[in-house]
Amino acid sequence: MARPTGRAPTLESVAERAGVSRATAGRVLSGATTVGEHAREAVLRAAAELSYVTNRAARSLMTRRSDSIAIVAAESEGRFFDDPYFSLVLRGAHAALAERDVQLVFSVLAGDEGRDRFERFARGGHLDGVIMVSLHGDDPMPRRLLRAGIPVMLSGRPFSPVEGLSYVDADNLGGARSAVELLAERGRRRLATITGPMDMIAAIDRHDGFFAELEARGMTGHGAEDGDFSMIGGRAAMHRLMAADPDIDGVFVANDLMALGALQAVGDAGRRVPEDIAIVGFDDSPLAAEARPAITTVRQPIVAMGAALAERLLDGIEQDEALPPLVMDTELIIRDSA
Amino acid sequence: MARPTGRAPTLESVAERAGVSRATAGRVLSGATTVGEHAREAVLRAAAELSYVTNRAARSLMTRRSDSIAIVAAESEGRFFDDPYFSLVLRGAHAALAERDVQLVFSVLAGDEGRDRFERFARGGHLDGVIMVSLHGDDPMPRRLLRAGIPVMLSGRPFSPVEGLSYVDADNLGGARSAVELLAERGRRRLATITGPMDMIAAIDRHDGFFAELEARGMTGHGAEDGDFSMIGGRAAMHRLMAADPDIDGVFVANDLMALGALQAVGDAGRRVPEDIAIVGFDDSPLAAEARPAITTVRQPIVAMGAALAERLLDGIEQDEALPPLVMDTELIIRDSA
Repeated sequence: MARPTGRAPTLESVAERAGVSRATAGRVLSGATTVGEHAREAVLRAAAELSYVTNRAARSLMTRRSDSIAIVAAESEGRFFDDPYFSLVLRGAHAALAERDVQLVFSVLAGDEGRDRFERFARGGHLDGVIMVSLHGDDPMPRRLLRAGIPVMLSGRPFSPVEGLSYVDADNLGGARSAVELLAERGRRRLATITGPMDMIAAIDRHDGFFAELEARGMTGHGAEDGDFSMIGGRAAMHRLMAADPDIDGVFVANDLMALGALQAVGDAGRRVPEDIAIVGFDDSPLAAEARPAITTVRQPIVAMGAALAERLLDGIEQDEALPPLVMDTELIIRDSA
Repeated sequence: MARPTGRAPTLESVAERAGVSRATAGRVLSGATTVGEHAREAVLRAAAELSYVTNRAARSLMTRRSDSIAIVAAESEGRFFDDPYFSLVLRGAHAALAERDVQLVFSVLAGDEGRDRFERFARGGHLDGVIMVSLHGDDPMPRRLLRAGIPVMLSGRPFSPVEGLSYVDADNLGGARSAVELLAERGRRRLATITGPMDMIAAIDRHDGFFAELEARGMTGHGAEDGDFSMIGGRAAMHRLMAADPDIDGVFVANDLMALGALQAVGDAGRRVPEDIAIVGFDDSPLAAEARPAITTVRQPIVAMGAALAERLLDGIEQDEALPPLVMDTELIIRDSA
């Protein structure tokens, strides 16, 4: 960056003018709070008089980089910790970012104030980009961040297309269809589904895939209940499905946490999985393998998706334009529940 | 801050010199990437020529604040998500920080590279302070951050005292003693303990409290096994205790996650809780109330401790000196396991 007059002021010249050591000047300018008020004042005054710009500010003006990105979930802490999905996304992103020497921080957004606060933090130059997960409805946050010049990458397709907004998604539609295919192959004829919150695209796509595959096979659905992507919600939804139609013999459950609740509900009702009711989950979270019976599920590559989110966000920042969306394949993992 | 020549340059003067609108200049200087290269170059050049310092840099030089703090766990993502302890600390810190309009981010530290990276991020002025949880051994990280002028608050007493390093802790010693007291009142005479990793102060203090109370009562211990603060570790430790002494009739388990594993182990061995072996946990995490039998436990006020960590960190930053340590009381919660 060109400067008006000869050489840029150095840390040495600031220290000399302030009458302190280079180390003290450096500590003050890097924000240390352990330097006495008098010395601090002198250094800040000298820096101002010499138009000295701290390395961070200078570097930030030059490269616009903080070498850090955030993963932000639009969820409460409780849900963030309860669903292994988030832990797996983080693990993937962490691994990808470690290789590129970028710091990863995570945060949860609660309410409008939390959104305003986070936007201020991001606009303050503390983040090079943001990965948003678990969006509900047509959340304005990605657009707000993009308008503020902050690159954003979504986990999952946005509610409506937004220019400059890229995402990594799983083939939710195809995954749901493969679950129905399996249940049909197992001879199940009265199928129902437990969905996630229907203000989330992943929930909508899995719901739509379920009914699309039924239709393609000339079958009709025997119920759809919202289980809120939580274990308790899945249990309650399963009870509602069985109450509405005691003869259902197969259920596609839109995540494994809800499938765990559904297993409990079937047990509570004195029925057996898979003999009476076959169950197929979604995610292939660690819960699925540990459950008894172990849950047959539609695997989405969550760790790889986390890594792809981080890599594509950074690539987009370097190339100064958002990468095209990436949709990753799902895979049926056969265990004992169907 | 005094400036050498008259009034400080304004955003307007930068925009005028660069030949762009005020809005464009503002977007460039706040780090927007949506402005064309030509305009960006002109604005940055004008800002340099006028010695214009961006608001963030100026504010940071003046107040040294980013209005954000981090909670950092020296653990893998897996453990961070598995133990409800972390979720509760975060909930408390979140609530406290929301009131003070400070952004909270969290991060996990893995290995030396991760530590270096995080230190760079913190030194870069992106954080006003750091709360560290789940330290192992005499971790140098708090001292490194303090030396870099970054205020640090620990969850739990440090391994050795460090000047300027404050902490919030629970009365682990007293809590462990109250567990032994209860088991003795229940008529249990052959007591053992399952500890956390013995490179952690919380694990050491609970271990020492267990044996101190036994000694005060003229009793001797019947085993101590490390359960690694994890459910699997607790189960294995309980199996080892029962193998070493089949007649133990009471166990103090140093966290609820391990107590859950211990319940499983007692069940696996065909024995009953509390009839054959009484179990007292530690934490009062949500797991304890949900377990069957529900776990009698030493409650530490984790949410309040999270709030105190955040409040005292911010108070210390404002007063420019670390607050004295705070040790919070524990309380015995009687349920069914003892």
